[in-house]
Amino acid sequence: MKPVFLYDTTLRDGTQGEGFQLSGLDKLRIAERLDAFGIDYIEGGWPGSNPKDVEFFQAAKSLKLKHAKLAAFGSTRRADTPVEQDAQVRLLLEAETPVVTIFGKSWELQVTEVLRTTPEENRAMIRDTVAHLKKHGREVVYDAEHFFDGYKDSAEHALATLQAAAEGGADCLVLCDTNGGTLPHEVQEICEVVRARIPGTPVGIHTHNDCELAVANAVAAVKGGATQIQGTINGYGERTGNCNLTSVIPILQLKMGLTVVPALENLLDLSYYVDDVSNNPHFARAPFVGRTAFAHKGGMHVNAVKKLARSYEHIVPQSVGNSQNILVSELSGQDNILIKADQLGLGLEKGSPVAKAVLQKVKELEHEGYSFEAAGGSLELLIRRELGTYTKPFDLKEYHTSFRKYRDGHEPVCEATVKLYVDNTPEYTVAEGHGVVNALDVALRKALLPFYPEIEAISLVDYKVRIVDGHDATAAKTRVLIETTDGHQSWGTIGVSENIIEASWIAIVDGIDLFLQKKRK
Amino acid sequence: MKPVFLYDTTLRDGTQGEGFQLSGLDKLRIAERLDAFGIDYIEGGWPGSNPKDVEFFQAAKSLKLKHAKLAAFGSTRRADTPVEQDAQVRLLLEAETPVVTIFGKSWELQVTEVLRTTPEENRAMIRDTVAHLKKHGREVVYDAEHFFDGYKDSAEHALATLQAAAEGGADCLVLCDTNGGTLPHEVQEICEVVRARIPGTPVGIHTHNDCELAVANAVAAVKGGATQIQGTINGYGERTGNCNLTSVIPILQLKMGLTVVPALENLLDLSYYVDDVSNNPHFARAPFVGRTAFAHKGGMHVNAVKKLARSYEHIVPQSVGNSQNILVSELSGQDNILIKADQLGLGLEKGSPVAKAVLQKVKELEHEGYSFEAAGGSLELLIRRELGTYTKPFDLKEYHTSFRKYRDGHEPVCEATVKLYVDNTPEYTVAEGHGVVNALDVALRKALLPFYPEIEAISLVDYKVRIVDGHDATAAKTRVLIETTDGHQSWGTIGVSENIIEASWIAIVDGIDLFLQKKRK
Repeated sequence: MKPVFLYDTTLRDGTQGEGFQLSGLDKLRIAERLDAFGIDYIEGGWPGSNPKDVEFFQAAKSLKLKHAKLAAFGSTRRADTPVEQDAQVRLLLEAETPVVTIFGKSWELQVTEVLRTTPEENRAMIRDTVAHLKKHGREVVYDAEHFFDGYKDSAEHALATLQAAAEGGADCLVLCDTNGGTLPHEVQEICEVVRARIPGTPVGIHTHNDCELAVANAVAAVKGGATQIQGTINGYGERTGNCNLTSVIPILQLKMGLTVVPALENLLDLSYYVDDVSNNPHFARAPFVGRTAFAHKGGMHVNAVKKLARSYEHIVPQSVGNSQNILVSELSGQDNILIKADQLGLGLEKGSPVAKAVLQKVKELEHEGYSFEAAGGSLELLIRRELGTYTKPFDLKEYHTSFRKYRDGHEPVCEATVKLYVDNTPEYTVAEGHGVVNALDVALRKALLPFYPEIEAISLVDYKVRIVDGHDATAAKTRVLIETTDGHQSWGTIGVSENIIEASWIAIVDGIDLFLQKKRK
Repeated sequence: MKPVFLYDTTLRDGTQGEGFQLSGLDKLRIAERLDAFGIDYIEGGWPGSNPKDVEFFQAAKSLKLKHAKLAAFGSTRRADTPVEQDAQVRLLLEAETPVVTIFGKSWELQVTEVLRTTPEENRAMIRDTVAHLKKHGREVVYDAEHFFDGYKDSAEHALATLQAAAEGGADCLVLCDTNGGTLPHEVQEICEVVRARIPGTPVGIHTHNDCELAVANAVAAVKGGATQIQGTINGYGERTGNCNLTSVIPILQLKMGLTVVPALENLLDLSYYVDDVSNNPHFARAPFVGRTAFAHKGGMHVNAVKKLARSYEHIVPQSVGNSQNILVSELSGQDNILIKADQLGLGLEKGSPVAKAVLQKVKELEHEGYSFEAAGGSLELLIRRELGTYTKPFDLKEYHTSFRKYRDGHEPVCEATVKLYVDNTPEYTVAEGHGVVNALDVALRKALLPFYPEIEAISLVDYKVRIVDGHDATAAKTRVLIETTDGHQSWGTIGVSENIIEASWIAIVDGIDLFLQKKRK
C-alpha cells in the first residue's frame, strides 16, 4: 500500500481561486493528465452546487482513468431531513463516482451560529450521510471543515464529529485547516491526538496557504500520521490557495523517502499544462518547477556549480523534469519535442540533422519568449518547415493598422489594411474591427478568401495576451496565444514581439497557415 | 529586548532574484520605508562585489534612519591572507556601517573542494575576520553558509566553524539554509543543538524557499531558540526566493505573541511599495497582503461571513492593513488617501464632501485596474480636480496612431497625429517614433509647445506596461505607468484601458498636465 495517497482538488477547490477558471472540456483534459501522472484521487466538482458540475460528471463517465479514482464533493444532509430525501445527497450518488467526499462541521461555534442546530443533530447528519453513501457502495472521504479551529475551541466536540464519521463507516477522516491559520507544530500534535483517539480510520490533511504554511502543514501532518494529502496543482485555490501538490510531492518522494508517484520527472510538464490550459502565467519562482528554481545567478561562479552541483542544488533538477541553467532552454527538454513530433505523426529521429535543427529553433524561440505548451499548431508548422513539407501560402507585402481616438463621446475607429501576393497575384484589402487585432484578422481573411475558399470554415475562438517580461520597458515582450477552430478540431498558435500588433499578426497567420498546410495533403 | 530581531536583505539577497532590479535611488527609498516600518537591520549590499554597492553605501551615509541599523555584507578574508591586507574586508569597513555581516563556509566539502583549503585555515579565516571587524567597533553578524547541509554531513565540523565565529566575538550566529533543502523539523532540532553547544551567542536563521518551506523553517528556528530572522519583503531572492518577511512578521506578532514591529497595519503598504518601485506585479494570492487573501468567493454566503467573520478569517484583515471584500477597494484603505493628500499639501478633511468624492473616485478607478502607489502624480491631479483648483490645459479633438509593417527586411513605421485646441486656437501635429507610444508623446509635445514653452524642461524617463487581468481576453486591461521629470523632481502617472495606446495616452497627458498645474501657481 502507498505510504501517502494524493488527493487532487484542482478541479473543485482550485477553481474557487480568483483567475482560475476551467471549462468542462479543460477539466476532462486535466483529469486525464492527473491520472497519467499517478494522482490517486481526483475531485471533479460539487454536483449539488451548480448544473455545470452535474454536466461534468455526466461527461466524465466516458473518461478512462488508468489509476485515479474520481470523487464527487458535497456536504452532509441538511438538518432535520432524512438522508434519503436530501436532494444534494441524491445528486452526489447520481454522479456515479467510485468516491464521494462530504464535508461536515467540526466547530461548535459554526454548528450553533451558522447551521443553527444542535451538536447532536450535527453528528447525526455526519453519521447518517456517510452510512448512506457507504450503503450505496461508495468509498467515502469525510472532510472535517474548520477542524483545527474547532479543536482549539473544544477538542471533545471536534473529536466527537470525527467519531460520528468513523461510526458511519468513513474510509478516511480529513482534517481541514479551512481558514489556513494553523501553525505546523499544532497540526502535527493534533494529528497525533486524532490517530490515537480514533485509531481505526486513516487520517488525511487539507490545508490552505493563508500563512504561507500550507505545504509545511501537510508535511507536519504526515509526520503526525496522516496518509492522505489534499491539494492542487500549482497551489491554486480560494484566497491564497490550497496546499501546493507540485511542492509537496517532491518533498515526500525525494526528502522523506515516500514513493507517491511512478515518474516524478513528469511534474514540470503537469505544472505547465495546468497553467497553460487555465491561461495563467507560470510562476517563475515556483519551488521545484519554476523557471528560476535552479537558476544560478548572483555572485555564484558557474564553474563552481559545475564542479560541485550538489553543493548548490538541494535536489537533482531532472528528478522533477526541470534543469539547471534553465535560461538556455526554458522548456522541459529536448525529448519532449521529439515525443510531440511523434504524436503529430511527423517522424523526427533523435539525433538526425532535421531533429537537431528543430531543437535549435525551439531553443532560440523559447529564449525570445515563445512557449509551445499551448501552441501545438505553431510547433507543428515549425517542424513541417524543417522537414521540407511546407509550402508558403502567400507573400506579405505590407500590413497597416490605424487607431483614431476622438474627443469623449465619439467611438474610436480601428482599421487595418493587408497587401499580399498569392502566386504573384496581388490582393489589397481593408477592414474595420472592434480592436486593432480584430481588424487585422478580418482584413487578412478577406485577402486570402479568393485563393483559399476553404478558410471560410475556420474562425478564431480564443485570444490571450501576456507581457512576458515587464521589467525592461524597452525590451518588454508581448506574447499572444490564439486558438483557431474548423468546428471539429482546434489548434493553438503563438506570436511574440516587442509590438503587440506584430505578435498578434504572427499568431493569426500561423493559425490559418497550418490549416492550409493540412488541407493541401 | 525584542524577542526576535528582523533582518531585511531585500536590497542584497532580494536583488539576486531574477526580475528584481533596484537602482541606487530605489534602494535608498526602500531603506527609509523599512526603517519607518520597524525593521531592525537593513542589509544594503556587498561593497566587495561591485562598485555600485560601494556607491550605495557612500550615498547611504546621508540616510537618517530612526530605528534600523544598516549592514554591509561580505565574506571572510581569503585563505592565507592576513585580514588587515584583505581588500574585500577593507571595503566592508570603508562602508562605515554600524553592522557588518560576513559569511563563511560551514560545509567541509565546500572548504576542501571550493575554497581548496584546510578546515583549520577556514576556521582561522572566520575567527580573524570577525575579530578584526569587532576591533573596528562593528556589530558583527556571522552568516554560516550551507549550515544545515554541512551539519548533516559533519556536525562537529559545522559546529566548530560557529565556535570560531563566537571566539572572534560575533554578535549573532546565523544558520543559513543556503540551498533551501532542509525540512522544518530538522531546522528546529539543529537550532536546539547549536543553542545548547554555543550558549553564549544569539542564533539567527536565513532560509530559502526551494521547498516552499522558507517561512515554516524560520518559524521552526524561532521555536528552536533563534532570535534573528533574515528575509526579504514579498520573498524576493535568488532562485525561488528568500524567507518572506511579509508572511513571517504577522505570524510572529499575531500567532506567536511576539511583538516585532510597532504598527503591523502598515505591512500591506510596505509590500505594495516594494513591488511598485521594482515594477513587479503584486502577487494577488500573497498571504496576508494579497488582493485575494481575504476575498470571499465560492459557495460562501457573504451574510454568514458578516455574521461570524472570525469563523471564516484566520486574522482580522485590518491588522495587516488589508481588508475583507477587497474587490470593492483594492488599495489600502481610505485613510491612506487622506495621508497622501496631506503630504502633497492639499488639505482634505476627513468626512468632507470633497474628501468623499475623492475617495469614491479612487475606489472606482482601482476597480478598473488603477493603482496609485507609484502614480502619485495622477492621484494629485485627481485631488486637484475635485478641489476645483484645476484648469484644463487643452481640449483634445482627436489623436491617431498608425503602424505599418513591410515584408521582411524593411523597418516598420510608427506615426502619430494629434489635433487639439488651446483657448480655441487649433493645433494639428504629426510625428514618427520608435514605437506607437513614443510617436504619440512626441506629437503631443509638438502641439503644446507653442502655448506652453515651459514643457521643454520636462521629459519622459520611464515607461512600464503591465496586463492587469489576462484571463478574460476581451476585457483584459493594460496598465501603463510613466515617470516624468523636470530634471529636479520626477512624478509618476498612470493610465488603464483595454487598449494599450489609450492607456499610454492617459498617462502621458497626466504627466504633462500635472507639471502645467503646478507651474501655473
